[in-house]
Amino acid sequence: MSTDGFRSGMLVFPNLTQLDLTGPYEILARLPGAETVLIWKTMDPVRTEHGLTILPMATFETCGPLDLVLVPGGAGMNPLLEDDEVLAFLRRQAASARYIVGICTGSLVLGAAGLLRGKRASTHWTAHGMLAQFGAVPVKERVVQDGNLFTGGGVTAGIDVALSVVAEIAGRETAEAIQLAVEYDPAPPFDAGSPDRAPPAVLDGVLTRGAARQRDRLERAQRAAARL
Amino acid sequence: MSTDGFRSGMLVFPNLTQLDLTGPYEILARLPGAETVLIWKTMDPVRTEHGLTILPMATFETCGPLDLVLVPGGAGMNPLLEDDEVLAFLRRQAASARYIVGICTGSLVLGAAGLLRGKRASTHWTAHGMLAQFGAVPVKERVVQDGNLFTGGGVTAGIDVALSVVAEIAGRETAEAIQLAVEYDPAPPFDAGSPDRAPPAVLDGVLTRGAARQRDRLERAQRAAARL
Repeated sequence: MSTDGFRSGMLVFPNLTQLDLTGPYEILARLPGAETVLIWKTMDPVRTEHGLTILPMATFETCGPLDLVLVPGGAGMNPLLEDDEVLAFLRRQAASARYIVGICTGSLVLGAAGLLRGKRASTHWTAHGMLAQFGAVPVKERVVQDGNLFTGGGVTAGIDVALSVVAEIAGRETAEAIQLAVEYDPAPPFDAGSPDRAPPAVLDGVLTRGAARQRDRLERAQRAAARL
Repeated sequence: MSTDGFRSGMLVFPNLTQLDLTGPYEILARLPGAETVLIWKTMDPVRTEHGLTILPMATFETCGPLDLVLVPGGAGMNPLLEDDEVLAFLRRQAASARYIVGICTGSLVLGAAGLLRGKRASTHWTAHGMLAQFGAVPVKERVVQDGNLFTGGGVTAGIDVALSVVAEIAGRETAEAIQLAVEYDPAPPFDAGSPDRAPPAVLDGVLTRGAARQRDRLERAQRAAARL
């Protein structure tokens, strides 16, 4: 299963959650002989949510056809739900790509592009209730595959999603070799990574601090869904 | 436990393994009111191992004193073992920092700076045998704390290390809130993330492909240790 010349393209946009992108990047960029391209509207440096700034490698015009297209999430995805240029780019690439991947709230952007209709899909736990309006079949799992569409839970789930995608592209042994190289044998010091098990006060705090962003996201998602 | 004004500084250098940096960055940059700075010799964009390019935010001269100094790893750390400018910067910052953190093979750079002497420490499984020559007490654990020094296993261990550091800095509830926000409830699709459990053929493949880099690293580590 050669992956020579396999081209993954990942969207990089202002105010994204950089680990949504950099987790899967670390996995997919290790596919032997593959090329992994970060794509945005321009080649200007892109500042992510907390300041870390990444250089795009290609634009929508220059990136060429992709074997895999991946959309990360984070606060900056809110405006993308109504961004015709981004949605058209995703539709165009998805028509010929072998794999379509949504990480965290990046799944909602795929939804706004009409790419989740009738598909089983997941997203960050705070946004799960927004999947259905895009015609998706919401699934509360960390990695969800429906045909050539892979989606997953929030932020760090991107690593699990990417390993699953690599196994599909290149076989299990390649995925295992990458897992070993990045020593992915996780041992979270606390058991608070899921809303089902986090202490109630911790859950309340996260929801309260994210409330304004969540309202904006919901309004945009409703308008985007109405346009589909 | 206010973290207002808490300053984390992370080394960003050519050919680093970007997830060594971006995993802990995602956790530490979420400390309320804190500042997280990426530091290198110059402000020029830094190309990481597989192409993703990151902008430094400060230089060794401009970054000012840090509360926390973190060194990631990856192929590009080999030359840092003998880079006097880098080692002097780390020694200077470590003298006043409240926390010193080594991720993956970044631990070896701390060792070359003389910062592991007599300390319990860990690193990427391929490099564990190199810890003792820097006077460290090697510990095969994913997260190792010795006083104000935190080190850990390879690449993805940086997320576990950073959550442990955040708990130390700001308390367990803050760490749990960050864990929930990034939905860190890992579910690796395979059980190959540790050399003890990876299939033998997978382990052999990873060791064979990394052999040249490993030889170079060992030679440099021996010379660096001799200079201490």
